[in-house]
Amino acid sequence: MENGPPNTATRPTPGEREPLSLGEIRDIWNLLSQPDRIQAFLLLPRDEAEDFFFSLPARDQADILLGVPTREQRSWIRSLPPDDAADLIQAAPLDKRDALLGLLDDPTRREVTALLAYSEDNAGGLMNPRYLRMRPEISVEEAVAYIRKQMREQTRTIYYLYVLDGEQHLLGVVSFNALLAAAPRTRVADIMRTAVTTIPEQMDQETVAQKFAQSRLLALPVVDVQGRMKGIVTADDVVDVVREEATEDMQKVGGVEALDEPYLQIAMRRMIRKRVGWLSVLFLGEMLTASAMGFFEKEIAKAVVLALFIPLIISSGGNSGSQATTLVIRAMALGEVRLRDWFRVVRREFIAGLGLGLVLAVIGFTRIVVWEGIFHTYGPHYLSVAATVACSLIGVVLWGTLAGSMLPFILRRLGFDPASASAPFVATLVDVSGLVIYFTIAALILGGRLL
Amino acid sequence: MENGPPNTATRPTPGEREPLSLGEIRDIWNLLSQPDRIQAFLLLPRDEAEDFFFSLPARDQADILLGVPTREQRSWIRSLPPDDAADLIQAAPLDKRDALLGLLDDPTRREVTALLAYSEDNAGGLMNPRYLRMRPEISVEEAVAYIRKQMREQTRTIYYLYVLDGEQHLLGVVSFNALLAAAPRTRVADIMRTAVTTIPEQMDQETVAQKFAQSRLLALPVVDVQGRMKGIVTADDVVDVVREEATEDMQKVGGVEALDEPYLQIAMRRMIRKRVGWLSVLFLGEMLTASAMGFFEKEIAKAVVLALFIPLIISSGGNSGSQATTLVIRAMALGEVRLRDWFRVVRREFIAGLGLGLVLAVIGFTRIVVWEGIFHTYGPHYLSVAATVACSLIGVVLWGTLAGSMLPFILRRLGFDPASASAPFVATLVDVSGLVIYFTIAALILGGRLL
Repeated sequence: MENGPPNTATRPTPGEREPLSLGEIRDIWNLLSQPDRIQAFLLLPRDEAEDFFFSLPARDQADILLGVPTREQRSWIRSLPPDDAADLIQAAPLDKRDALLGLLDDPTRREVTALLAYSEDNAGGLMNPRYLRMRPEISVEEAVAYIRKQMREQTRTIYYLYVLDGEQHLLGVVSFNALLAAAPRTRVADIMRTAVTTIPEQMDQETVAQKFAQSRLLALPVVDVQGRMKGIVTADDVVDVVREEATEDMQKVGGVEALDEPYLQIAMRRMIRKRVGWLSVLFLGEMLTASAMGFFEKEIAKAVVLALFIPLIISSGGNSGSQATTLVIRAMALGEVRLRDWFRVVRREFIAGLGLGLVLAVIGFTRIVVWEGIFHTYGPHYLSVAATVACSLIGVVLWGTLAGSMLPFILRRLGFDPASASAPFVATLVDVSGLVIYFTIAALILGGRLL
Repeated sequence: MENGPPNTATRPTPGEREPLSLGEIRDIWNLLSQPDRIQAFLLLPRDEAEDFFFSLPARDQADILLGVPTREQRSWIRSLPPDDAADLIQAAPLDKRDALLGLLDDPTRREVTALLAYSEDNAGGLMNPRYLRMRPEISVEEAVAYIRKQMREQTRTIYYLYVLDGEQHLLGVVSFNALLAAAPRTRVADIMRTAVTTIPEQMDQETVAQKFAQSRLLALPVVDVQGRMKGIVTADDVVDVVREEATEDMQKVGGVEALDEPYLQIAMRRMIRKRVGWLSVLFLGEMLTASAMGFFEKEIAKAVVLALFIPLIISSGGNSGSQATTLVIRAMALGEVRLRDWFRVVRREFIAGLGLGLVLAVIGFTRIVVWEGIFHTYGPHYLSVAATVACSLIGVVLWGTLAGSMLPFILRRLGFDPASASAPFVATLVDVSGLVIYFTIAALILGGRLL
């Protein structure tokens, strides 16, 4: 404030550049421009600013770091643990990365450089290379003394102690509880747990999240193929990962490329680009419906009544396909369904699709018969029309359900992301084939009468 | 094995009742019948069985507990912390709950009974009432001694120490690091942090997850309206919550009621019930398309060419609506977009919808003109038809985008879950109105020529 322009040097009027509280900043952060963000941030007391800085996504951290005065940059980046510092550097523009790396102290820079070699979305990219390690032969007393010394130098809370041999192989884990509860002369080797859940460094972050959900621990050790310990992944990082992965999957299922940015912050041009791709592909696919309909143009001209039910029938296929694909994609992401379960899924979806189709067929048949009774709109062959619609509904819903449930398997088998089997994609697929099913059944039932 | 039936007393043949390893059990758990699960579980060594038991969802834990011999039940339920015991009891059949509560020791039973009074999906239902508490005036030395004593009695790792006054008001937090790093005679009050993020006990679990993602801490304290501490929520529980909430949201967006059970495990009848409700509602809504088409039957009979593009146009509206609703629902769940942001969203989606509509209009127009050049299928008025399709696409995509983005706001404003604005729901809504838009534009452009 002291250096503010003259008009704010007196008591600021409301809405003017009065320093915002931490809560207010959090509330309106997404609405603030880059310079306003920096200004609001610099006016916070250091401890609040730190809390806030630590809580921000890496991209915002990078923006802030590049916005604060140069003399303050070093203390900010050094306040981060190596895994978060690596994330920040990865989120910064390419031409700034070396300068940011240069702000770190030598050992941290080596750690961060090593972390940057990992892909952002596998266990290696997620892990913190700093953890408490000790040899199996030391006593509990020595371990406690060592920890107290370490604690003074570490910035983060420590949860477990990892017992390694001379070649860094992970031998076991001791929890703080166990250590503090044990007699001082006990050897660490005698109280460590040896059945340890470990995470391979190349494991995909979605699978890491599954491991956490299974183990219910707060930190898991990351090891290389030789069983040498490389770092730890902590549950707070996994909370973020799970949210990110779910967001990506949901956006893909909704037929959008993953935004990778908050909705209100992403530039309009980038958002349209992320949406127009899929939308155009779907549109091109959907053009096949016009071709399919052109193929049946004579039938439509003879029996316009058939056209009336086209949206009803194809959308029912799309909706049931959307249900099936969403369920299967999510079950895959949670690890409940694996590639080799495909036949069990087919069996389940066949029954479900048949059941759902039957229900809609009954509703559809009833609707047409009742409408005819009241409005007399469907002509003398209304029972045949109703039968055509009902049979088509069973066929289209069954087909939609099977296609929607199998597409994620096929995509995964081919090495693509199963979530690309988006609801709109399945709906488009089913629309085209649904028309063929409908007109084929119509030809069978109405041939000789209406057609 | 010693008590197995005679045919397995000798070396078991592969696939026979050979004890499964922990990894194997995890792998095929979802495929095992209830009796097989119990049997496999009972054959595990106690420590592996414990790890596995702790890692299971509450429903499976309850099944196991009710399946193991009565004399073992007590030790299993007592091995759980109170919050997990409460979850287990909530997952058990109603008539078993009192018996299960009776297995607990008196103080735990009181804690669990208190927890059962909270709704399962708010902070109270998520929290663990056991945590380390101390008075502000004790010294670091006393605190460490107290912790060591507590550690011998607690079953879970402890991360932070909470400083409370005589009325249980939360005054501050000390991390283990800070405690072990401090001089022994320092008062706890001098090293505690007083700017503490707290969670109100009634806070919805989705908001709790947001708080965790912001704070990046491993445990947060839960307080009542008077600021009295009630328990802690730990990040490992939040990982589960985030996964559950994302699953529910995604299933709703896909047009299914939340399954609340793993896909391969839910009974077929229950799964069909969860799907048929929405599917029937959508079907009834989609019937309005038949009515709308009936209204335009004369136009269709005069210009069958119009019918050809119906699926193309209404599905484009549905797809763009599905994109918009998915993006907005997810942004709301992540706390990026709030109710009061609705106008900013309208503005963004108006621009996006217009842009997307224009792109599709250009593609559609080109397609018709090119097709006409090659196949001569659309008759002498093909340019007017192309213009009708192009204008309708802009209108329908814009409308789909706006409807899809606003529906979640309207639902939330009315107190419903915004995720109910499922992609199929929006698509159905847009299908009906899309037809009206299409035929209105057709009447304007083709009136006097084709119509």
